[in-house]
Amino acid sequence: MKWLEESIMVKRGVGAGRKPVTHHLTEEMQKEFHYTIGPYSTPVLTIEPGDRVIVDTRDAFEGAISSEQDIPSQLLKMPFLNPQNGPIMVNGAEKGDVIAVYIESMLPRGVNPHGICAMIPHFGGLTGTDLTAMLNDPLPEKVRMIKLDSEKVYWSERHTLPYKPHIGTLSVSPEIDSINSLTPDNHGGNMDVPDIGPGSITYLPVRAPGGRLFIGDAHACQGDGEICGTAVEFASITTIKVDLIKNWQLSWPRMENAETIMSIGSARPLEDATRIAYRDLIYWLVADFGFEQWDAYMLLSQCGKVRLGNMVDPKYTVGAMLNKELLAQ
Amino acid sequence: MKWLEESIMVKRGVGAGRKPVTHHLTEEMQKEFHYTIGPYSTPVLTIEPGDRVIVDTRDAFEGAISSEQDIPSQLLKMPFLNPQNGPIMVNGAEKGDVIAVYIESMLPRGVNPHGICAMIPHFGGLTGTDLTAMLNDPLPEKVRMIKLDSEKVYWSERHTLPYKPHIGTLSVSPEIDSINSLTPDNHGGNMDVPDIGPGSITYLPVRAPGGRLFIGDAHACQGDGEICGTAVEFASITTIKVDLIKNWQLSWPRMENAETIMSIGSARPLEDATRIAYRDLIYWLVADFGFEQWDAYMLLSQCGKVRLGNMVDPKYTVGAMLNKELLAQ
Amino acid sequence: MKWLEESIMVKRGVGAGRKPVTHHLTEEMQKEFHYTIGPYSTPVLTIEPGDRVIVDTRDAFEGAISSEQDIPSQLLKMPFLNPQNGPIMVNGAEKGDVIAVYIESMLPRGVNPHGICAMIPHFGGLTGTDLTAMLNDPLPEKVRMIKLDSEKVYWSERHTLPYKPHIGTLSVSPEIDSINSLTPDNHGGNMDVPDIGPGSITYLPVRAPGGRLFIGDAHACQGDGEICGTAVEFASITTIKVDLIKNWQLSWPRMENAETIMSIGSARPLEDATRIAYRDLIYWLVADFGFEQWDAYMLLSQCGKVRLGNMVDPKYTVGAMLNKELLAQ
Amino acid sequence: MKWLEESIMVKRGVGAGRKPVTHHLTEEMQKEFHYTIGPYSTPVLTIEPGDRVIVDTRDAFEGAISSEQDIPSQLLKMPFLNPQNGPIMVNGAEKGDVIAVYIESMLPRGVNPHGICAMIPHFGGLTGTDLTAMLNDPLPEKVRMIKLDSEKVYWSERHTLPYKPHIGTLSVSPEIDSINSLTPDNHGGNMDVPDIGPGSITYLPVRAPGGRLFIGDAHACQGDGEICGTAVEFASITTIKVDLIKNWQLSWPRMENAETIMSIGSARPLEDATRIAYRDLIYWLVADFGFEQWDAYMLLSQCGKVRLGNMVDPKYTVGAMLNKELLAQ
Repeated sequence: MKWLEESIMVKRGVGAGRKPVTHHLTEEMQKEFHYTIGPYSTPVLTIEPGDRVIVDTRDAFEGAISSEQDIPSQLLKMPFLNPQNGPIMVNGAEKGDVIAVYIESMLPRGVNPHGICAMIPHFGGLTGTDLTAMLNDPLPEKVRMIKLDSEKVYWSERHTLPYKPHIGTLSVSPEIDSINSLTPDNHGGNMDVPDIGPGSITYLPVRAPGGRLFIGDAHACQGDGEICGTAVEFASITTIKVDLIKNWQLSWPRMENAETIMSIGSARPLEDATRIAYRDLIYWLVADFGFEQWDAYMLLSQCGKVRLGNMVDPKYTVGAMLNKELLAQ
Repeated sequence: MKWLEESIMVKRGVGAGRKPVTHHLTEEMQKEFHYTIGPYSTPVLTIEPGDRVIVDTRDAFEGAISSEQDIPSQLLKMPFLNPQNGPIMVNGAEKGDVIAVYIESMLPRGVNPHGICAMIPHFGGLTGTDLTAMLNDPLPEKVRMIKLDSEKVYWSERHTLPYKPHIGTLSVSPEIDSINSLTPDNHGGNMDVPDIGPGSITYLPVRAPGGRLFIGDAHACQGDGEICGTAVEFASITTIKVDLIKNWQLSWPRMENAETIMSIGSARPLEDATRIAYRDLIYWLVADFGFEQWDAYMLLSQCGKVRLGNMVDPKYTVGAMLNKELLAQ
Repeated sequence: MKWLEESIMVKRGVGAGRKPVTHHLTEEMQKEFHYTIGPYSTPVLTIEPGDRVIVDTRDAFEGAISSEQDIPSQLLKMPFLNPQNGPIMVNGAEKGDVIAVYIESMLPRGVNPHGICAMIPHFGGLTGTDLTAMLNDPLPEKVRMIKLDSEKVYWSERHTLPYKPHIGTLSVSPEIDSINSLTPDNHGGNMDVPDIGPGSITYLPVRAPGGRLFIGDAHACQGDGEICGTAVEFASITTIKVDLIKNWQLSWPRMENAETIMSIGSARPLEDATRIAYRDLIYWLVADFGFEQWDAYMLLSQCGKVRLGNMVDPKYTVGAMLNKELLAQ
Repeated sequence: MKWLEESIMVKRGVGAGRKPVTHHLTEEMQKEFHYTIGPYSTPVLTIEPGDRVIVDTRDAFEGAISSEQDIPSQLLKMPFLNPQNGPIMVNGAEKGDVIAVYIESMLPRGVNPHGICAMIPHFGGLTGTDLTAMLNDPLPEKVRMIKLDSEKVYWSERHTLPYKPHIGTLSVSPEIDSINSLTPDNHGGNMDVPDIGPGSITYLPVRAPGGRLFIGDAHACQGDGEICGTAVEFASITTIKVDLIKNWQLSWPRMENAETIMSIGSARPLEDATRIAYRDLIYWLVADFGFEQWDAYMLLSQCGKVRLGNMVDPKYTVGAMLNKELLAQ
């Protein structure tokens, strides 16, 4: 893959030339999954820049939902949702650096693999919630168990969807805060950006020693906005390659893949998430790609693309993108 | 084009079987362009359902900006911006009907065709504005004159963009209000959705007798959000085919093209525009495509797509889409 | 009333020294009430600056609701709500001037006066609405008929509230737009600010010849935000004194009473309404009261007051205030 | 004070009958101040329900700004702002209980007491910020040193303001998260509600063992919204009485004083903070004061009051209030 060789990760990663060691973060190693992302938890693994990690992730409901007759509101207990693997320590990572995470592959885990989509009371994009407080009755609770394999998601007799896996929650630790795994912010977290799947590199700003990488919340597919509140949530075997870029001060996460570069913002209201993403993309174009600031602003007005990640989490997530063809000088 | 034959416009339009008459709405016929969209202006043309109209549109600055040395804030006077052709009356259109507008083609108008992109003080997505009131100094004023033809937009020596024309402002009249041409709402208006170009059909809810079609604001290309406030604004020759669908009660505009159907919402904050669009798309799937409501909600959570139209106008515009492949039963 | 003599209205109004003529705008004179505020309607009255007008207003439901068994969704038809008296033309009023409206008194109209409060489906601050689109079922419909007199509002056996009348909708015309009477904006409109009652002067920016004053939507009392969507709506006899201030360019409505000055902003989201109001108040302090801009900003951070007018209309309304004691130099 | 004897704190607090012990939380005892509010920090004091604590608070800049020539952006380092005293453990406090904090008195600390107001780049209500990302230049940096005593705040030669002290940041710990002291949320935090001063009782929902009370950020006065970003920030001697109410499950903080009860919400956009506050107030009226839900909703629409706390922190804070006279049955 030529683009990967020319990626920022490979060009600037301190472990790019190393022969990677492959680690396997199993359920047994992980033992306790985490529901908050911060500097206070005990590391489960320490790796060198450039290493590969195979991560056995749990689904976002941590297996609590196992049939379409289950009632989510009885089985799910806030804030103990969206279990995270990690923290994984990256040797040498310090505040002011960036951890790069290349997703090599994502496979369904277990026999008869399946995913789960649920409508949870007072959660979702088209219902009153704890934050958009209404007096209306909640929507009905629903659970869908969905057969899947590494090619298809068998949604219903009528509809089969392509298997387009991605990681919903990918994060380093904030400096002193510890943030629940449902909330995305400038450290990453529950961004739910469908582009963060196999063949993508996510860049996360290190703020605590070792970076403290958390990962979880695999989705077999997801629409823009994750509008009902959940994707096709599944337990995965996710293989990542992790590298360290020294002295790259990011304010927000960034992503690149073969075709595009993306800046990612998370905030409410949704225009603020979009503003963060587009401004950061402008800053990136100026800093690394030879653009003048106002030219970048005006050019993005003609060809920038926007991805709505989630519009259901405590902060909404938006990616602003530019096609890599326009980066050539 | 097979999809067109199977479109809602062709299947339900009362003029679909007619031999269309072609009208040409020239500058001379238009005489006075409109800056407000409502029931109080004098029609310039009356057509039968199924007719074609070739419209000579002016650029959004109405030609006031003609060099990169021009200063927009001195030349542009609110609310006399974004001049609209029309109103075009469609015979037989009544409240409760829908006017369908198929865009056949859009060509640059004039010799040495060019487009204009401008940064206007206190206008745009990454600056304080009249509505998001700040005390900061405005961004610098900028004007870019951009050569273009029917294949390319010659942005700069470094960057050439594909010519992807679309209509920024397409509208019927509200029932009793008259709304400035800068604001999109449930009657259409300044939606700035890049998909509303050649090969698309837009469905607009008739609320005043004759529908009163307004059209203007051609863009040679535009990114998601039109983030600096303006696209590549140009004077166009736009050819549309207009039909009438009786007794189709829409709350918001809808669109279809070869690949997708789209519901369009305009509101602030941006999540409300997105909610409107996704909810209307669910209602559409239930009413016309045999979906159960909660199944539609959950399926869109897996494969719905979102287009950010504008994030700079008095209301922001979002399209929620579903691929037509998923409509087959 | 000493403050009135020192008000801006009296000091700068061109009719302040005139002996006022008193007009009575009866139902018969009004004939047709208006549901849209703009330059296209026929005037019902022309007055000189300084004149008094006694206005017979209808309640916001225009009498359609007359018993607690009535069902609002069957009786109320959008956009034919919130009937307005007017337009009243003020001789000499031109774009760039201000019309000042002093409310002298508001009395209940009719025998056995009463007010009405209703819960209307998909309308209100704690429910999904047409703009904050949800899939939840609507809240129940409710109608309350409330006895009142010029001292008390007899809400229920348990609760009696003071009669604190005010005008919900007060407006001049936009320049070319005509805006439904449910929406507040920079021309005034459905602001629902409880301070706009007897003893207040509202300043409205003239944009169309004659100003074209509209008035309606009397409330016997209202809480901050008008949270269920309606106040105690009643038919009133409202007496106003209207004057004209030449060459005072306002962007948004302003208000003064004995104790305070207020700038009023209307927008969504609610922080934008607040920003508009606070920024306009700063501009006012700088222009007319000898403040330096940053000192005004920092001082308001210590003693500015905020009134939430409505949080239920298509735009939300906020007033930012400063106590007049702090204006002395 | 009769109202205090009839307050929820006195009627339901387990320590109400005890003879209180008075503790003094000095700078020496506190040693390290906290910038994050959570369950991971080491307690500095353990008290019994009903005890009094005299707290020596630092100003929000922690003394880093000491002259009007200081440059805030050089002296203040995120996230090490808004230092908090605590955590104070309350014996017996468990998840599902409430900690009540009555503020007895607040006095300026130190000789020649003064407060500080600053304009900090990219912070405040009328400027682009990290979250409302703009490309505009920042506002100028400004520092005001303000003499004050226990009666007056000597703002400038022209303006003297009353001393109306309150606590900007008052909090218990989240269950597993640790949230920076700049952000308010449902655990309390940086709410900046001017009513939380001497003579008020704040009720905070216990989520971690001992409750873990944090307190800081004294303001000598503050306007609604704290619009420039800072109040008159000062070092205080604040005396509180702390009690424990068992088995009172709150979702959000509440407050009462002699005249009013208040529910407090923190969120973005501002309408969501207001919705949270009003809905919680309705729930409170129903649960404890004999109201029927829809009657409470409609009554608040007539006489509810809204306080804008802050509109500058990462979440905005709003209090919804009802006068206590309306609680009598």
